[in-house]
Amino acid sequence: MTDDLVLRQDSASVATLTLNRPQQRNALSRAMIAALRAELARVASDASVKAVILAGAGPGFCSGHDLKEIQANPDPAFYAALFEECAALMLALQALPQPVIARVHGIATAAGCQLVATCDLAIASSAATFATPGVHIGLFCSTPMVALSRIVPRKRALEMLMLGEAINAETAAAFGLVNAVVAPDDLDSAVAGLTARLTAKSPLTLRIGKEAFYRQDEMTTTDAYAYTAAVMARNLATYDASEGINAFLAKRIPIWSGA
Amino acid sequence: MTDDLVLRQDSASVATLTLNRPQQRNALSRAMIAALRAELARVASDASVKAVILAGAGPGFCSGHDLKEIQANPDPAFYAALFEECAALMLALQALPQPVIARVHGIATAAGCQLVATCDLAIASSAATFATPGVHIGLFCSTPMVALSRIVPRKRALEMLMLGEAINAETAAAFGLVNAVVAPDDLDSAVAGLTARLTAKSPLTLRIGKEAFYRQDEMTTTDAYAYTAAVMARNLATYDASEGINAFLAKRIPIWSGA
Amino acid sequence: MTDDLVLRQDSASVATLTLNRPQQRNALSRAMIAALRAELARVASDASVKAVILAGAGPGFCSGHDLKEIQANPDPAFYAALFEECAALMLALQALPQPVIARVHGIATAAGCQLVATCDLAIASSAATFATPGVHIGLFCSTPMVALSRIVPRKRALEMLMLGEAINAETAAAFGLVNAVVAPDDLDSAVAGLTARLTAKSPLTLRIGKEAFYRQDEMTTTDAYAYTAAVMARNLATYDASEGINAFLAKRIPIWSGA
Repeated sequence: MTDDLVLRQDSASVATLTLNRPQQRNALSRAMIAALRAELARVASDASVKAVILAGAGPGFCSGHDLKEIQANPDPAFYAALFEECAALMLALQALPQPVIARVHGIATAAGCQLVATCDLAIASSAATFATPGVHIGLFCSTPMVALSRIVPRKRALEMLMLGEAINAETAAAFGLVNAVVAPDDLDSAVAGLTARLTAKSPLTLRIGKEAFYRQDEMTTTDAYAYTAAVMARNLATYDASEGINAFLAKRIPIWSGA
Repeated sequence: MTDDLVLRQDSASVATLTLNRPQQRNALSRAMIAALRAELARVASDASVKAVILAGAGPGFCSGHDLKEIQANPDPAFYAALFEECAALMLALQALPQPVIARVHGIATAAGCQLVATCDLAIASSAATFATPGVHIGLFCSTPMVALSRIVPRKRALEMLMLGEAINAETAAAFGLVNAVVAPDDLDSAVAGLTARLTAKSPLTLRIGKEAFYRQDEMTTTDAYAYTAAVMARNLATYDASEGINAFLAKRIPIWSGA
Repeated sequence: MTDDLVLRQDSASVATLTLNRPQQRNALSRAMIAALRAELARVASDASVKAVILAGAGPGFCSGHDLKEIQANPDPAFYAALFEECAALMLALQALPQPVIARVHGIATAAGCQLVATCDLAIASSAATFATPGVHIGLFCSTPMVALSRIVPRKRALEMLMLGEAINAETAAAFGLVNAVVAPDDLDSAVAGLTARLTAKSPLTLRIGKEAFYRQDEMTTTDAYAYTAAVMARNLATYDASEGINAFLAKRIPIWSGA
């Protein structure tokens, strides 16, 4: 049952996780959140996966929370659990050892926009739109803004949050919400090109770097240097760094431990 | 007396506060700072106000501190009080329950540029200019940089602060200092359009969201999620969220509690 | 010996420090790091220096760490010392009382890109390229990302770090990594123009402001205002601020204490 909510397809060391409630624009019901968290937990310990694509089935990427489910459960305990579980999902994406790329083909609103903001990288179709429209229904996008305000300049984030209006993909790229915009027909090849470049890297090195990125980002500069200097020394003592440096100096292709 | 320094005009749930020392380019004397703080305190508890416009009378928006007043008071206690009061003004703008929009029609320099950076949103005339020029008079814009460095990319902020040179409105938009630039003749309609979109929202929702924005921004991501998940659950339990979701699902216009 | 690794040339109150291992693209061997730190320590206490240019001899600006030296010293203690010394170098650039401008004429990769990110300001030739390519050799650019992630939007920083690909100078400017891009033949005049504008300022004021910038940047907004309000009051009590304000109001050129 749960498995149907998130489809997983593995190919060339890449796991594609597809939100699968197309009729509901992949709204994040509690069951959908649980299904995605469960799949991420499996991916986290799966050494065959070197990169993850997050995608959506049907016309939209993700429309955020499931308003009908919320309406049907007017219960403070339900509300608290819902937002805690959703926050845990977002933190799991950042904690995942592998890079996560959002493949945004259609609308990404509210917690759907938050998913895009949370993924390490994002590629959008020119047909995609982005919004944090909670203010229109009296429910400010307060959890989405945690992700949004950490990647989009402050006045742009406040504009999106206070007005709730949609921006197009080009504007999203200018705001730093996505890395690239391509024509709809080129989306899959653009995402495949990106994952191919990522899976050629040492999985161990990407894991070390991704973890260090989010940890150092919340430290003072002095603390961040003390921490990352130790990370670099540890990274340099790994087989992959030794192999990488030897291969570079010998002008040959490195062979990673995780390959 | 004090009232003359800041004009207030209310219309359509919007309070326009106009700095009114046009001959002095609305320099922030201690009396001007006190008058603006007093007016903001009144607005904060005025349920009829759903949005605030900050404007300036005469040719400039605001030229920063009043250098003649500073020159006439060579007193450490005066200096300390002046900068503490100015900082309290800036914090009051962020703490105001309503959104604040800077209407920037002319020069905004030093603490005047800081006002623009501190307002939640800003619209500039193409004739406006922006600078943190304190370095030219031996007084680095150290308090303005608190606001500036939190919304403008670091090397851009340092460039403005160390060189003290003016940038035009288009550059200010590119740096993230203002949300939009319009022709001088279109400034009032652009600001009115923005406030009309804001006043259509639930005041309660905007208040919850604005407060949460600035609070979560200074937390770690994990703490920010714990905090905002609780904010969301609390927001969802309000009448306005219930009404907003019901109206959305029924495809009708919501009627907010504060309307 | 050590002196040869970093050339110093002083002119018009500007010290130009040139990394001088052109054949190795100015790779940061431990000796090079030590030489640059020693020269920065001398500059820090040299009142005749009002601005510093960081440049590189030969075809590149700086290619990062010296991989042959690393390969020849497979020793955890060596690794730890190397990255601690490099981090201390970066912190010394930020702690330097004078503004530091990166003059980037060619490639700036890994710790070389970090140097550009760390300098207060940077001007690039259109021929320069930038990358954090450690991921290609199994050694994630974890220390460079401390500087990079504090000036470049998050998804752009992650893209550079996870893919390791080079960006050109125009892209670097769009990402906030450099302040300006000029034609190769115009690089020296652009840098000279920038330093001339900086050396016309009060050195004392620039020192107060630069120190305050990096300190307040790591505080909450409320703490930052308490701190900078005190800095402003102290700055205002200096001779240079008094002279600057008097000169401004009298419409004459100020004469700084440090001039």
